[in-house]
Amino acid sequence: MAAIADTLFLGALVVTMDRDDRRIDDGAVAVRDGEIVAVGRRSELETIEADETIDATDHILMPGLINGHLHMGDSLFRSLVEDLPLEPWLERLWISERAFVTHENVSLGARLALCEMIRSGTTSGLDMFWFPEAGADAAIEAGFRLVTGPILFDFDGPDGIANEDRIAVGERWLDRYDDEPLIRACVQPHNHLTVSPEGMQAARRLANDAGALFHTHCSETATEVGSTRERFGRTPMAHLDDLGILEGPTALAHCVHLTDDDFDRLARSGAAVLHNPLSNLKLGSGIAEVARMLERDIPVLIGTDGPVSSNDLDMWTAMRFAGLLQRGHRQDSTLTPAREIVRMVTSAGARALGLGDVVGRVAVGLRADLILIDLAAPHLTPMFDPYAHLVYAVGRDDVRSVMIDGAFVLRDRVLTTLDEDAVLSEVRTLADQIRVHAASVAGTDVS
Amino acid sequence: MAAIADTLFLGALVVTMDRDDRRIDDGAVAVRDGEIVAVGRRSELETIEADETIDATDHILMPGLINGHLHMGDSLFRSLVEDLPLEPWLERLWISERAFVTHENVSLGARLALCEMIRSGTTSGLDMFWFPEAGADAAIEAGFRLVTGPILFDFDGPDGIANEDRIAVGERWLDRYDDEPLIRACVQPHNHLTVSPEGMQAARRLANDAGALFHTHCSETATEVGSTRERFGRTPMAHLDDLGILEGPTALAHCVHLTDDDFDRLARSGAAVLHNPLSNLKLGSGIAEVARMLERDIPVLIGTDGPVSSNDLDMWTAMRFAGLLQRGHRQDSTLTPAREIVRMVTSAGARALGLGDVVGRVAVGLRADLILIDLAAPHLTPMFDPYAHLVYAVGRDDVRSVMIDGAFVLRDRVLTTLDEDAVLSEVRTLADQIRVHAASVAGTDVS
Repeated sequence: MAAIADTLFLGALVVTMDRDDRRIDDGAVAVRDGEIVAVGRRSELETIEADETIDATDHILMPGLINGHLHMGDSLFRSLVEDLPLEPWLERLWISERAFVTHENVSLGARLALCEMIRSGTTSGLDMFWFPEAGADAAIEAGFRLVTGPILFDFDGPDGIANEDRIAVGERWLDRYDDEPLIRACVQPHNHLTVSPEGMQAARRLANDAGALFHTHCSETATEVGSTRERFGRTPMAHLDDLGILEGPTALAHCVHLTDDDFDRLARSGAAVLHNPLSNLKLGSGIAEVARMLERDIPVLIGTDGPVSSNDLDMWTAMRFAGLLQRGHRQDSTLTPAREIVRMVTSAGARALGLGDVVGRVAVGLRADLILIDLAAPHLTPMFDPYAHLVYAVGRDDVRSVMIDGAFVLRDRVLTTLDEDAVLSEVRTLADQIRVHAASVAGTDVS
Repeated sequence: MAAIADTLFLGALVVTMDRDDRRIDDGAVAVRDGEIVAVGRRSELETIEADETIDATDHILMPGLINGHLHMGDSLFRSLVEDLPLEPWLERLWISERAFVTHENVSLGARLALCEMIRSGTTSGLDMFWFPEAGADAAIEAGFRLVTGPILFDFDGPDGIANEDRIAVGERWLDRYDDEPLIRACVQPHNHLTVSPEGMQAARRLANDAGALFHTHCSETATEVGSTRERFGRTPMAHLDDLGILEGPTALAHCVHLTDDDFDRLARSGAAVLHNPLSNLKLGSGIAEVARMLERDIPVLIGTDGPVSSNDLDMWTAMRFAGLLQRGHRQDSTLTPAREIVRMVTSAGARALGLGDVVGRVAVGLRADLILIDLAAPHLTPMFDPYAHLVYAVGRDDVRSVMIDGAFVLRDRVLTTLDEDAVLSEVRTLADQIRVHAASVAGTDVS
């Protein structure tokens, strides 16, 4: 046991999410050099010498939440486009994106998203957006753990990269961030309709050569499935599978519309599903068959999607939707028990992203991505079942402190690495321009 | 225009929810003697002399939220029973209720619920629980507007009232609270399976004689519909309709399982539906066809149900579920637009409860049930569409102040009428007893 620590948490209900799902009443956790070095009861660990001892009584101490799918830069367009299905919604959104997505603005949008995510207890996210280096740099500066990387898109994007250069640019990107401890690389073509089969295969090779995750959208809407059948004579999942795209670590966002054959291919591939219940509902895409995925041992993560569809990055709300939706949809109250949902956003989620030995559990040897949940609120009183609380009652407002890689990024509800006031002020100034532009495009006032 | 006011709010974005859905940028509202006496632009009202002027810049000022269906006393059992369908879940819950539901404990549970509701911006609720006088008295003391009244149940309840006395007891209850300005009476038999047809008809007469709302559960689960068909040879809705129960102001909780004929009867009756998306999902009851109800002009309110099923009383979450669920369920992103959802919990909700001329809008002559939403958080930045924000992004943490009947009950996030620390401490002590009792009943530790 470590005799010296940087930080020692004492007295929390420790929800470890470790392999035994151990919960420790009046527990303690010691952190040194960014690593968890001791986990146990207060009585066992309270003699550890620590630079700082945190009284965590009446709090839950648990792994930080992992957001399985988001678009940080889209925070800039929150509530700009409402009440449309995915395809026309995307067309409308892309008009504003083309006008405002610059490296500088993506960096601003990322910092806005990071303020929101850290405040709400999210410590890692899988981000897909233009200028992924802007997102990565913002995450590094904020001390946030991000999975991101080169995006591919066959059409003119706002990043000015020619289609034929994207793979080479991607290689340089992967080299550049290879040694960043907080960045885990992925390669992310938008989807199989906006990227050619050859482009998808090149992206897969790029990912495999770099040992990176492959991340794309798949089977989000019935319209997408129809277009794919029309163009390629098969479902999106069959298309990816037949192209060899699923060979290697893979994360597929949405998977709302799957055939039985798709389910077989998905289960066989080992790919993870990134489930985004809020955006799937809001855009009228449908309800993903998550309970069936779990029955087939398909790894499922939970994501918020971008705040322009979801409309925020609150993982507690996303967990609650994921935890409740299947039960009503299938009229079975035993589906997706709360503990399973908490696993999806911690231990199992980390494993599916290749981070299982890095984060996702409160266990010795892992990096210290930890959150403290204040149990004092009336909506958390009384507590008979901590997992039920975490999925059905805890909210962003209950997150008191957040540690990532051993450093506090939120301390007693104050952000320590981000200048929130400056970020919000800059965003409001930019939003005025976005509003004027959107009105000029639409011919109507969107305020 | 009033020249003198008790309270003057200046500078808010006023979301009036009035008949024209007027929104006033840089708006102002004056309150005197508990009544809204002026609504307009800051420039028009800022010269009003007021005892107190509130700077409401960068806030939304709107009507307080109305919770259409809840069981305040159930707060005491939050997260006690999980992962069961309604019927066995109720059986299990009732074991604990029978042991702990006393006048004193119901009063405590009500105060716990009131702390949570006021903090989250709810200013009215329709409450059904044992010892309704305990709930009513707690609401009066807290300055909360409550619709409640005598409950009917043919079996032995924990209140010690003999079945044959319930109507007489109910009459005395209705007399006792007749003049209480914050209490609006309703008569509430549990449902048509736990109350005989004669009991239901007597309850209806009691309600009509007192000019009170009639409130019951209806068509919550497929099991309930099956039992009703078996016992009475018709659906729950047809049963109520044929018994004459729908003749008069009526609010029916749930209505998840309705036939075409049920829809016709419901639409014809004018009864309001109390939609509880979270508990319907959690208990595996199903997804109520709310979009279809709106197409038929059936009034729909949104409720949380009791915290033992939902698991909290957060109307923002309930609004978000109500607003998103139909879209995914029916794969149509144009259903239940955000403004419609806000109407359900304010103006339309008030109307359906017979409170349309009392609260639910920011309009001159109505009582001042108002909430201030702080727009400063990153999850609310930027804002292009206030209604979208209210349904998809605002949370309980954004509620800064709450006024009911002209008096602040939450001021800068501090409860002014309830001793929250004392309530929480008493609840935790009681919860220890509930935990021990539940373990002894179940033979297992439920901690």
